[in-house]
Amino acid sequence: MSTTSKEIRLASRPTGMPAAENFELAEVDLPALEDGQVLIKNHWMSVDPYMRGRMMDIQSYVPPFQVGEVLSGGAIGEVVESKNPDCPVGTWLNHMGGWREFTISDGMLDQRIDPNLAPPQAFLGVLGMPGLTAYAGLLRVGELKDGDQVFVTAASGAVGSVVCQIAKAKGHYVAGSAGSDDKCKWLEDIAGIDKAINYKNYGSQPELEAAMAEACPKGIDVYFENVGGDHLTSALNLMNQFARAPFCGMISRYNDTAPVAGPPNLVMTVAKSLKLQGFIVTNHLDMAEDFLRDVPAWIKDGKIKWEETVYEGIEKAPDAFMGLFAGANFGKMLVKLS
Amino acid sequence: MSTTSKEIRLASRPTGMPAAENFELAEVDLPALEDGQVLIKNHWMSVDPYMRGRMMDIQSYVPPFQVGEVLSGGAIGEVVESKNPDCPVGTWLNHMGGWREFTISDGMLDQRIDPNLAPPQAFLGVLGMPGLTAYAGLLRVGELKDGDQVFVTAASGAVGSVVCQIAKAKGHYVAGSAGSDDKCKWLEDIAGIDKAINYKNYGSQPELEAAMAEACPKGIDVYFENVGGDHLTSALNLMNQFARAPFCGMISRYNDTAPVAGPPNLVMTVAKSLKLQGFIVTNHLDMAEDFLRDVPAWIKDGKIKWEETVYEGIEKAPDAFMGLFAGANFGKMLVKLS
Repeated sequence: MSTTSKEIRLASRPTGMPAAENFELAEVDLPALEDGQVLIKNHWMSVDPYMRGRMMDIQSYVPPFQVGEVLSGGAIGEVVESKNPDCPVGTWLNHMGGWREFTISDGMLDQRIDPNLAPPQAFLGVLGMPGLTAYAGLLRVGELKDGDQVFVTAASGAVGSVVCQIAKAKGHYVAGSAGSDDKCKWLEDIAGIDKAINYKNYGSQPELEAAMAEACPKGIDVYFENVGGDHLTSALNLMNQFARAPFCGMISRYNDTAPVAGPPNLVMTVAKSLKLQGFIVTNHLDMAEDFLRDVPAWIKDGKIKWEETVYEGIEKAPDAFMGLFAGANFGKMLVKLS
Repeated sequence: MSTTSKEIRLASRPTGMPAAENFELAEVDLPALEDGQVLIKNHWMSVDPYMRGRMMDIQSYVPPFQVGEVLSGGAIGEVVESKNPDCPVGTWLNHMGGWREFTISDGMLDQRIDPNLAPPQAFLGVLGMPGLTAYAGLLRVGELKDGDQVFVTAASGAVGSVVCQIAKAKGHYVAGSAGSDDKCKWLEDIAGIDKAINYKNYGSQPELEAAMAEACPKGIDVYFENVGGDHLTSALNLMNQFARAPFCGMISRYNDTAPVAGPPNLVMTVAKSLKLQGFIVTNHLDMAEDFLRDVPAWIKDGKIKWEETVYEGIEKAPDAFMGLFAGANFGKMLVKLS
């Protein structure tokens, strides 16, 4: 008896902000398993800002999605049928075959997870790629050193919230920005950062800069960049000598349809010997072992907490993805599939 | 009998491009030497783009010049009177008391030079700060690695010309840009780089980018930044994954009177895991020993050559300085004082 699986395909490439029409829901009959394959029933799938880049027809660090084909991305599922003796029924896997209810896989490149260690969806967030992104970006690319003052953009997001809490766990002064008062309250009261500012309260770059300056009375030594735009211009003015800016993302730029001017004060990079460095988590997988030692320990000690925003059902995956660009997520944006 | 010395003072802070009225020539009677002091007769002085920053009233990595006071900068001179037994008459010194004919110094922080090793003014250029800037910027900040494709802006300048030739001495493909056909011819025929382009031939950023792309068929792994503006926008599009951009200067921006938009494509830094890093030579003085081993050897082997543009007389120092921003120099800009 064949299994049917609903999946989301790229109907057309978005221009500017992604819209519902760029996605289509389809249902497919899955073929019978071949030897070595497993059938994974997906319980959770991830939507992430980087996927916007894959919807454009340009070569980047990951190949573009193809129009008419199913999307893909991180997902957590359980093996429900197996023709692979190394991957029996009941195995939980973290894999890249998301945006669909069932995935056929050879199981070889998929990460086995222990659903008793943490809720399985945590492996799409704090214990997964976003968490490792935070860890590698802050510690290696950001070269976090004793006494550093840290500023985090998109501070309540899946990556930013972990950056904030790792820095706090290591004893740093941490400030950050987010897009609602609720998010700021969570950052200060639950995540325990020193100062959170709601960037939507500031109508211009100089106002935002003044708020960031007040939040960082000793300047900024590590500026964790998730957003770009006015935040970056402000940060360049506020960064201390030898400060580092890990560039994790620039979500404010991903839906531009025409060139938008960059920061007018990039010359500060020379004047203050700043380092601005882009990075991609997949180039830092060698840190996974340290990450999976440190972060679970911090979670156990109550030093790292997280929030999830959950949309239910594969049909809602496009809404969840589009919500990322409207700030609809509080912490990790997830789609619950079963 | 007292010595009189002509000197150049900052008459007023420049707004935009420096002008003659920002400088004034003065003559002073020097006091008698105190114990421990020496009187240096300056033969050469340096003008450098970084001095423009010191003419503004802002704190930076060096303190601002004061209006009404004598300017300062690198100079080469000979001790003609000494009350310091460790620094006798006849000692040649590389010191920071330039913009004047005679300097009184305690000689302690000044670098002794051997005028038989190279023409003394070379210690203001290829064997001095500009040379060390090139060496540290390319090798440490730029992390030059085997096989890297190198692009150098202001490639015939005091720093750029040394960057080009160090990279060639180490076997790299090197392209660069300069502001005249003569400079480009020197770069290809004398400095031996693979391709030089005259950026003044291109009226727009896309045209410049096309020329840079043609000059760098395998992309850019190290982009040595001296200029900013359209060059940087183009480079961000042409840099390969993991490329590094040492930011040595942005001369195109130093005389701005209002904010000028930055590169619209800074997001490339994320997409390609680029590193953009400003630096100041004085933070890399620990490399001086290696520098003074390698560069004289390359000079001896004919692998590093240099040009000088010389203005005669202290009165001409402001013209020499202003000429830097008009591209009037070919190689190191110098003022010969005696």
